[in-house]
Parts: sequence; C-alpha cells; structure tokens
Amino acid sequence: MTIQEQMVKLAREARQATEIMANLSSTVKNDMLRRMADALQRAASEVIAKNAKDIARAREKGLSAAMIDRLVLNEQRVAAMADGLREVAELPDPVGEISDMRRRPNGIQVGRMRIPLGVIGIVYESRPNVTADAAGLCLKSGNAVVLRGGSEAIHSNVAIGTVLKQELLAMGLPGGALQVVTTTDREAITELLKLEDDIDLIIPRGGEGLIRFVSEHSRIPVIKHYKGVCHTFVDASADGDMAEAICINAKVQRPGVCNAMETLLIHKDMAATFVPRIVAALEARGVEIRGCSVTRELAPQVRAATEEDWGTEFLDLILAVRVVDGLSEAIGHIRRYGSLHTEVIVSNDYRNTQRFIREVNSSVVMVNASSRFSDGNQFGLGAEIGISTTKLHSFGPMGLEDLTTRKFVVLGDGQVRD
Amino acid sequence: MTIQEQMVKLAREARQATEIMANLSSTVKNDMLRRMADALQRAASEVIAKNAKDIARAREKGLSAAMIDRLVLNEQRVAAMADGLREVAELPDPVGEISDMRRRPNGIQVGRMRIPLGVIGIVYESRPNVTADAAGLCLKSGNAVVLRGGSEAIHSNVAIGTVLKQELLAMGLPGGALQVVTTTDREAITELLKLEDDIDLIIPRGGEGLIRFVSEHSRIPVIKHYKGVCHTFVDASADGDMAEAICINAKVQRPGVCNAMETLLIHKDMAATFVPRIVAALEARGVEIRGCSVTRELAPQVRAATEEDWGTEFLDLILAVRVVDGLSEAIGHIRRYGSLHTEVIVSNDYRNTQRFIREVNSSVVMVNASSRFSDGNQFGLGAEIGISTTKLHSFGPMGLEDLTTRKFVVLGDGQVRD
Repeated sequence: MTIQEQMVKLAREARQATEIMANLSSTVKNDMLRRMADALQRAASEVIAKNAKDIARAREKGLSAAMIDRLVLNEQRVAAMADGLREVAELPDPVGEISDMRRRPNGIQVGRMRIPLGVIGIVYESRPNVTADAAGLCLKSGNAVVLRGGSEAIHSNVAIGTVLKQELLAMGLPGGALQVVTTTDREAITELLKLEDDIDLIIPRGGEGLIRFVSEHSRIPVIKHYKGVCHTFVDASADGDMAEAICINAKVQRPGVCNAMETLLIHKDMAATFVPRIVAALEARGVEIRGCSVTRELAPQVRAATEEDWGTEFLDLILAVRVVDGLSEAIGHIRRYGSLHTEVIVSNDYRNTQRFIREVNSSVVMVNASSRFSDGNQFGLGAEIGISTTKLHSFGPMGLEDLTTRKFVVLGDGQVRD
Repeated sequence: MTIQEQMVKLAREARQATEIMANLSSTVKNDMLRRMADALQRAASEVIAKNAKDIARAREKGLSAAMIDRLVLNEQRVAAMADGLREVAELPDPVGEISDMRRRPNGIQVGRMRIPLGVIGIVYESRPNVTADAAGLCLKSGNAVVLRGGSEAIHSNVAIGTVLKQELLAMGLPGGALQVVTTTDREAITELLKLEDDIDLIIPRGGEGLIRFVSEHSRIPVIKHYKGVCHTFVDASADGDMAEAICINAKVQRPGVCNAMETLLIHKDMAATFVPRIVAALEARGVEIRGCSVTRELAPQVRAATEEDWGTEFLDLILAVRVVDGLSEAIGHIRRYGSLHTEVIVSNDYRNTQRFIREVNSSVVMVNASSRFSDGNQFGLGAEIGISTTKLHSFGPMGLEDLTTRKFVVLGDGQVRD
C-alpha cells in the first residue's frame, strides 16, 4: 500500500469506529482507561526497551541533552502516563449532557445535547507521553483518534499505542478508534490533512514550524496556538510586593513554557521605584533584561531591547521590559505584539482592571495572578488537550468539553409549522 | 488599486474597526440598528431605483422568473429588511456575559466572558436582503463585517450597504465595521479568502457550488452547510394521523428550503396501512413519489427510486420513500445518505425515540415534529445567520451567540504558582 492508501484506510477505520465509541457509557469508557493504565504499567519494560532504540538514534544524530531528556521513558514516566489515564477516567463525561431545554410557544421543547466531534487527528513532536495523554482524552470524550507523533519517538509511540489498542480489542471495542501512524514519512501528515471526510479536527502540538506546516496544508479544521507571548502590566496602583511576586513567578518558575511572561509593561508612575526593584530581583535569579530607554535610565546595566524583542517568545530566562504612559498604551502594546495567549494586569484600580478585562482580546485575561496559571488543569478543566489562540470553536486552554460539540434535540407531540 | 490591494485595505479597515465595535454598549448598538432601519425606509425609493438596474440586467441575461423574484425589492421588502434590523435590536446582546465563574482551591476565580469573533466575511448570492440581515447580526454581536454579494444584485447591495454605513459614520462609529465589496470580479472572493490575519470567519450563503468553492479556497475557517437532505422515519408505533400531518407539512409547506423532508422512511410493520395512505395524501398535493420496491408493491403507480434519489436534495415537490426493517436500518440509511441537517422520528416507543436521539448524529434530531421547525427563529435563537452541518464551533441553526466566542477571565489577589 502507498502511504496515501494507508492513511485513507486508517482514517476510514477510525470513522467507522465512531459509531460504537460515540455511544459508549461512561462506565465502559472509564473501565477502558483504567485497563489501559494497568496494561501500560505491566508492559513498562517492553515500552522502555523500545524507547531505548529512539534514545540510541537520538544520540547518534547528536540531539541536545534537553531534547533527549524529553524523549526518555523510565519506570517513573510510564507510571505517570498510566496515572494520567486514571485521572482522565475520574473526570466527568461531557457526552450526553442535555442543556438549555426550553419550551417554545407552540409546545415543542428545544434543547442541546453534547456529542463527540468524531475523529480527532493529533500531530505532535518528541514527548512520547502525548500518545497516551491525547488518546485518553479523545477516547473519554467518545471520539476516535489518529495519532501521528514525531519520527524521533516512533518506537516509543508505536509501543505505547499497541499496548492501549490491545485493551480496546480485549474489551470487544473497535481497534480503529485508536490509530497510531507507524510510518515516519512526512507524506503521512500531508495525506492525513486531506481527509476532511474522515477526520473532523486536527490538533497540532509542537513547535511553531510544525503548527504552521499543519495549518497551511490542512483541509480539516485546525485548532492551534503558535506561541505564547504573555504580558504582565504593572499599573500605577499596583501593590509593589504583589507585583514583584507575580513577575518573578511568571518569568522564573518555568521559563520554557508558553504561559511564562515574556514582556513586562510598567506604568510610568511606578517606574522610578519598581524598575530598579524588579530588575534587581530578576537579575538575581539569572534573568537577562532587555529594556526600553526609560528602563535603562533607571537600571543602566540593562541591555537595550530591539524592536524584535517585543513580541518574541524567549522560552528562556530573558525578559523584555517597557515603561508605558498608562493603561491605553499597555493595551495598545499587547494588541500589537501579543499572541492572544495570556495577559495579566497587576492593579488595585477598579476601573483599570475592568477595562483591561474587557478590552484585552487575548484568550486568557488575568487580574493580580501569575500568567503561569493559564492551564487547563489550573482552570479546573481537568487534563488539557491543547490551547487555542484562534477564536473559532475554542479559545484558551482546552479540556474534554472542547473535544465535543452540541446538537439540537427537539421533542414534540405532533406539531407542524404554519 | 488591484483587486488584491482593495481587499487587503477593506479587511484591514474592518479589523481596525473591531477595537471600537467590540466594546460598544448594547444601547449604542441597538440605537445604531434602529437608525439604520429608519434610514433604509427613508431611502427606499433610491434603493428600489438601484435594484431596478439589477432587475433589468437579470431580464437581459434571461434569468428565470423565480430567480428574478428573489432579486426584486419593493416598498414592502425594504420595510421587511428594516423590520429585521429592528428585531435584531430587540434581541439580547450576547457580548460581555460572564459565566461559569468558579473559585479554584487556591482562591483564584476562573470564568468565561463572551466576546465577538472579530471580522466576519459573508459571501452570498442573489437575495439583497442578506446585506441588511447579515450586517445587523454581525454588528449587534460586536463584530465587523465584510459583505460580498453576488454580481446579479450588486447595485442593490451597494445601495443598501451605503445607507447603513452612513448611519455608522453619522454616529461617529468606524465605517470600516461594515464593508461592502463593490467589485463583481470573482477574484475578490479568492483574495478575501486568503486574509486569515484580518478575517476570523467566513460564512458562505447560497448554492452548493458557491459553498464548495469558498470552502476549498479559504485559509480562513468556514462555517457551512452544503445541503439539507432531511429524513422522516415513521416507526411501527407511530400515530398514523400525526405521522401523516408531519409528513405533509415537512414535504409540502415549503418544498424549496433546506429543512423540507426529502426522504421518508417507513417501518415495515406500518407499511401496509401507511404507504397507500401517505402516497395518496402527498400525490393529492402534487408530490411526485419515488419509491423502493416494497413501496411500489403497495402503491403501484409510484415510480421506482434510483440509487441517486437517496441522498438527493430535491428542493421540489418530489419525495423518495423507502420501507425499512426497523430503527437500525433507518439509522443506517440516514448515516449513509444524510447530510447532518435534520432528521425526525415519528414514534410512540420510548426506547426507539431515545435511541434515535442518541444515535442519529445530525445537527438537529426531532421526535414527533415537522422538520420545518429546524430554524433559528423557531428554536428561539432570534434571527438566523446560517446553519452549520459541520461540527466545529457551531452545529445546526446559528444565532447571535454563534458569532461570538468566550475568553477566560481570572481574578486573583496575588496568587503565584507553586
């Protein structure tokens, strides 16, 4: 079979599996996830042995230590994957929920029932745990899933997928509900992205390059976020201690993730006291500051920010700092350079916090809290399948519910239209 | 300016207008819509004069009487457009609603605020009233709108758009919020569909050809429905009188619309009595029946249905009729030939109605009511901007709320992440 034929077959099988998967009870789905978790732990040594092949190849290819660390599976990490599946089993099942049921004047009742999307395609890189995590969320929400991981983790991904699929089959469920693409040829992605009749949604997870590639080649709707250029604005009325704690947490606690702060905006009336203080505090924690001219007057050791630094996702201990005239300039800066991910205002001014909430059009808008909270788990959505910075379907961190849609249900007793 | 430059400029102006439009109060938006309605009625004679040009050209080109009737504007139809705008002014404003605000264990409050999508592009054919209807819904929901109607109605559309835009400007609001494409060159559509940075959503309204063209050429998310092949299944336990009334209404009341019934499925245990009865009733109303072999045994005058008749949207007084073994075969038929629009079961069997509701995966599933109710107005959504038969973002009839999305709002008092 050509790669095209393989992909068509695999997506078609997934589509066929949706008939069964969409109508499973929560009990069966939760049981399935727990069996998968147990099976994964029982098979840990085989999975780790397959993973060793990926690691060996990564070493041969001279991948960085950080990259290799992302790839590595050990007993602990396999156990963490299994626990992830068990946690998804504990989450409430969104499927079947009926809401907004209202009686119309003519007596028909009109409401909406939550249903799975159908077939979800996940295109991802490196971390093999995505195989189990994404499969768990898609299956729990009644969907079938097609998983296409990166070539660097192919042995690990196939090993994990095989273990999970065996449990599906052992329960008499359709194996087509969980498809792992076994070829590492990039053509497999472009072929999958054409199958709009059999795949309902594509979620790419990885670097900006992968995400752009997927969204440019897909005929299927894509939910994506390119990058997280998160801003914190310290208003004139901010509590200095709170602002310092929030900025340090947002920048330093885990700088390599998309909800870390990348640009700090400071109200000019706070600048004289807050700029020297926060620069010192961050420098003491190893952060390199790149500042505007006002910042550099107040902290001369700071390097000048270039135009490119505004809007850059450093993903590192680097921070761009700008002093602004006030809230309007801060909002304007965010609108121009932001990525619609997460923005924070630290303020004690009622009117300004209200305006910030209303006028900043990012997917997450926060008052007096660290941007590091911008996460499905922290928001109470349960495990997170991704973050959307485009507004259609979902905007912001996405949980189980975002893998579903709603159909209309109409209950009549013989009504016809005039 | 080239067409490409014109479209870029027009979409950019629409994007810039969103900053203002997204934050208007409901009072201002409702006032704007009522002023637009009044202005449209005051300008009725000019609009009708421009419309006469379109009609003259349509006659020259030899368009059918039905097509010309769709194009015609008169005092009554202009008044109906104005009333449509006034009705939209009366609808509740979805923007700004905050829901699901919950306190997390660490004290942050996480909720969701409804916001406009941004810039909506509407690509449509014939009926000039779409210009006012779509503009009203998009503006009421805080969006900017780019309208690209068909060449056959260009003078009417531009005339209506100009009247509406004058009211925007007279109120000191940005004219860019309402953009009417004045060129009839098809290149304008393909150029618009590339502007993913400045247009957030495309809604095509028209024939299947237009919708396929738009969805194949768009880099912007498209919400679409290709066709409405609506099924009615008359179960063994159905009340015969109710089933007859529903079928007649669904087929005859307005056969040319997407929520009319196109295929009737009849349980075999009902066939002996119901087939002759419904065939006679429908034939008496001018409906041509195309039946399966069992149907033809019971009503020999009926013409044989071809394979192509299943799944055809006749939009006319034609009905395909099939006798099925039971609910499973009915659901299987709908799954194979349906278009995910609207399906009806007529039944008094609890288990079967529950199964039909759960297992039929169309956007609207009805029990004991005519498919003709499948409509935003009938469902209480207010005026309808379109119907989606794809599951992402919206599924089924779409109202004002479907032109919005939700962002996360987080209220803290200094929390940082551990």
